[in-house]
Amino acid sequence: MSQFEIGAAHVQRMRARRIYEALKDQIVSGVYGKDGHLPSSRSLAVELGVSRTTVTVVYEQLLAEGFIDVRQGSRPRVALAAIAPSSPDKSLPRPVPKRLSSYASRIRDIAPWSDTRDSRFVADFRYGDLAPSDFPNAIWKRAVNAAMAKTPERLAYGDPRGSHRLRMALQGYLWRARTLRCDLDQIIVVNGSQQGLDLCARLLLDPDHRFAIENPCYAMARQIFASTGATAVSIEVDRDGLNTELLTDVDARLAYVTPSHQFPLGGVMSISRRFQLLEWARRLEAYVIEDDYDSEYRYDIKPVPPLYGLQEGCNVIYLGTISKTLSPMLRIGYLVVPPELQALFATAKQLTDRHTPVADQYALASLIEAGAYEAHVRRVRRLNGERRETLLNALRLEFGNSIVIEGADAGLHIVVWFRELSAQLASVVIKTGRDAGIGLHSIASLYDPRSRDAQTDRLGLVMGYAALDSRRIERGVQLLGDVVEKTLRSSG
Amino acid sequence: MSQFEIGAAHVQRMRARRIYEALKDQIVSGVYGKDGHLPSSRSLAVELGVSRTTVTVVYEQLLAEGFIDVRQGSRPRVALAAIAPSSPDKSLPRPVPKRLSSYASRIRDIAPWSDTRDSRFVADFRYGDLAPSDFPNAIWKRAVNAAMAKTPERLAYGDPRGSHRLRMALQGYLWRARTLRCDLDQIIVVNGSQQGLDLCARLLLDPDHRFAIENPCYAMARQIFASTGATAVSIEVDRDGLNTELLTDVDARLAYVTPSHQFPLGGVMSISRRFQLLEWARRLEAYVIEDDYDSEYRYDIKPVPPLYGLQEGCNVIYLGTISKTLSPMLRIGYLVVPPELQALFATAKQLTDRHTPVADQYALASLIEAGAYEAHVRRVRRLNGERRETLLNALRLEFGNSIVIEGADAGLHIVVWFRELSAQLASVVIKTGRDAGIGLHSIASLYDPRSRDAQTDRLGLVMGYAALDSRRIERGVQLLGDVVEKTLRSSG
Repeated sequence: MSQFEIGAAHVQRMRARRIYEALKDQIVSGVYGKDGHLPSSRSLAVELGVSRTTVTVVYEQLLAEGFIDVRQGSRPRVALAAIAPSSPDKSLPRPVPKRLSSYASRIRDIAPWSDTRDSRFVADFRYGDLAPSDFPNAIWKRAVNAAMAKTPERLAYGDPRGSHRLRMALQGYLWRARTLRCDLDQIIVVNGSQQGLDLCARLLLDPDHRFAIENPCYAMARQIFASTGATAVSIEVDRDGLNTELLTDVDARLAYVTPSHQFPLGGVMSISRRFQLLEWARRLEAYVIEDDYDSEYRYDIKPVPPLYGLQEGCNVIYLGTISKTLSPMLRIGYLVVPPELQALFATAKQLTDRHTPVADQYALASLIEAGAYEAHVRRVRRLNGERRETLLNALRLEFGNSIVIEGADAGLHIVVWFRELSAQLASVVIKTGRDAGIGLHSIASLYDPRSRDAQTDRLGLVMGYAALDSRRIERGVQLLGDVVEKTLRSSG
Repeated sequence: MSQFEIGAAHVQRMRARRIYEALKDQIVSGVYGKDGHLPSSRSLAVELGVSRTTVTVVYEQLLAEGFIDVRQGSRPRVALAAIAPSSPDKSLPRPVPKRLSSYASRIRDIAPWSDTRDSRFVADFRYGDLAPSDFPNAIWKRAVNAAMAKTPERLAYGDPRGSHRLRMALQGYLWRARTLRCDLDQIIVVNGSQQGLDLCARLLLDPDHRFAIENPCYAMARQIFASTGATAVSIEVDRDGLNTELLTDVDARLAYVTPSHQFPLGGVMSISRRFQLLEWARRLEAYVIEDDYDSEYRYDIKPVPPLYGLQEGCNVIYLGTISKTLSPMLRIGYLVVPPELQALFATAKQLTDRHTPVADQYALASLIEAGAYEAHVRRVRRLNGERRETLLNALRLEFGNSIVIEGADAGLHIVVWFRELSAQLASVVIKTGRDAGIGLHSIASLYDPRSRDAQTDRLGLVMGYAALDSRRIERGVQLLGDVVEKTLRSSG
């Protein structure tokens, strides 16, 4: 068949498709009546200016699907069953969903995701974003290609807990990097730590339960636990992390904490509070969810070992991620769960989405096995340490003593409090910032809405720096200086 | 630094780590008492045969973490806070989880995943597995590499509904391949259709609800809906799919159906039943979940358009997947949801795991855009059509009229009923099969356990063929003949 003929066949098919669609719509909407006749194939072909074959193909299709009946020699008729019993009026307004689950009603008011990133920004201090230039492109590409070259015996669903190879690699990594010892069966690979939190929420919380959570905290953690219908008990944090004194009398099923580097304020949980927290969990048979989201990044301080493993047999669920070291777009995280929960987490993960995609799991495993992952972590720790220095210096230069900086020892963000600006000015500052070409993010949304006013009377910004180079950081801080000055002028 | 020196530093670090671990364990478990002294660094170095520097490094780490106090010139002491207030007795048996959610208690009895695949099998007729040789390796690899080469401006969380590019590509594909017209915003990319079902279950079902489901059906669909606490109403299927007459008086929040190719029995839902089903959903304000899991595979019949779009404004949630065309290991599926549910599904997806991994989304989009996906579908349809022919011929040759075959018009599996074997023999047949080197899978587990006995008095096997070559299919059927003969002899 020549190329020309293929083209002609294609055109004919497209024509047939359009005619088929038009006729089906007409039949279903009752144009031909309940059992009216359609045009003969000959007359329709003439009418539409197509070949009779094209029309015949269309009629055969409609016949096969039960929309028409064709009897020898007579014109096709609309099949009795093909008319919708009652076509809803198209002019009616879109129905609002009514019959939903209580879960749906609980998440309904969460603001929809929207991409407020703006490529024209000089600097967006959004927390959680990373610089593409930090990503180990060549190494990852090689690893993914090696993973794709590995042909399995069958293409088949895999272990819901994650591939054996990745869990082996993670077991070694957790031991080397975090002095965390666990059995292979305790590790569950998930699609980022968000899925890990979701599994915890589903397996541990009911609507009549309560959960303890840091205040301020990672907003989506509070949302995910609250989406079960359970009630949040917000516990204040300070420089030593969650204030466990305030937890003592709280009856809750779980406590969500970030002990290595409190998000967002940056405190490291002291050893005495760690023991208090574990004792609380033991007494109440509650679980502690330890979100170790960015412990790879520490600058002037020594690494702090995780809560997990501090006490034998303690009720800790450990949560790790590569979203801060490699990329949030890969979607790989991992849980270390107590032995008595292993089977339940595996079943829940399987029901939720079978398992995490396989090729990326292999690629990550090979990076860890080769030591390339840890070398990469050292490299990005150094790079982010430099960004942090640049940001701290620029802020000191620009603002001097009019700001207080929190949480700079570790992580990929700091919190900047403005002595002279009230928290009420947040939206003005953010808008002025946007006009000036910088992305600013208030800390207010990270507080429990019920306690927000009490917690932050001064304006606080969460400033992430991992996606920015030094020029953008410096220029961004200068622009922030202008924004603050302008706000002070117009508000004073 | 020479290589030798790096090696020595490494050895020293490893030694320090081990000593650190041992001391930490000893401190925490109370070996040195509540505020006892530790050995001086000098004596410990001598005792352990390491350099004093190594011990100093260890002590500094323990000091930084708050396990010990060090005062000028005196031996380090155990910090007061470092002792666990009450160490649980290690000899106690592992605690059974007690304080769990009702979701956890509902999924607790689901059998854990286990890999019963056996590489020594001559043929495993497991449904859902595909042949690695069918996978378009070179094309996929090129697409993934192109996706990895595309550097975004920032590494950042993306749209929870999936990338704009993939949703565009899917919109076109659904229109061309399934005559399904929808807005871009109605498409939600998920991690395989399993996650699509999970989102539907969470958003639509509460414990006091009921859901209608085909009987027999895809077992994990029933499990996921039942995991919400809602009650299953099992509806019988026949050659025309779900028997909608039996649905008329059922009060339920949703109906789960596989109208293009009923799983597992293979019926295609007739047009009159389609309208009945939609009318039922309209009347009850219920949603119909249309799982279009393998509509790409049809052999002697014309494609049947989906339920979705048959009626304007109807309450259908459409579910598609690439697990049957490309690979179940990739974990990509998609939902088309009614406009009033768009925002809710996007929020639920975001809370669950932010979004589906990005590189695979780009790769799939580029395959669809280039027409390579549809060319691939045509190729695997032909290949699987050949496998199906081989299997059907082999079965006819081996068993003649002693079997009845169902569902061979479409899909990647058939159901074989054995006239002479009762359903009670399933486990014997499967075990005998395993010993003979073939993997067999009974249909019994796909029936509602409450109605299983009534539905299948004869032995039925679900035989998937998509992972097998013709030699294995033919040899597998011969071995199945032996297995059946042996079972008949020993049971008669």
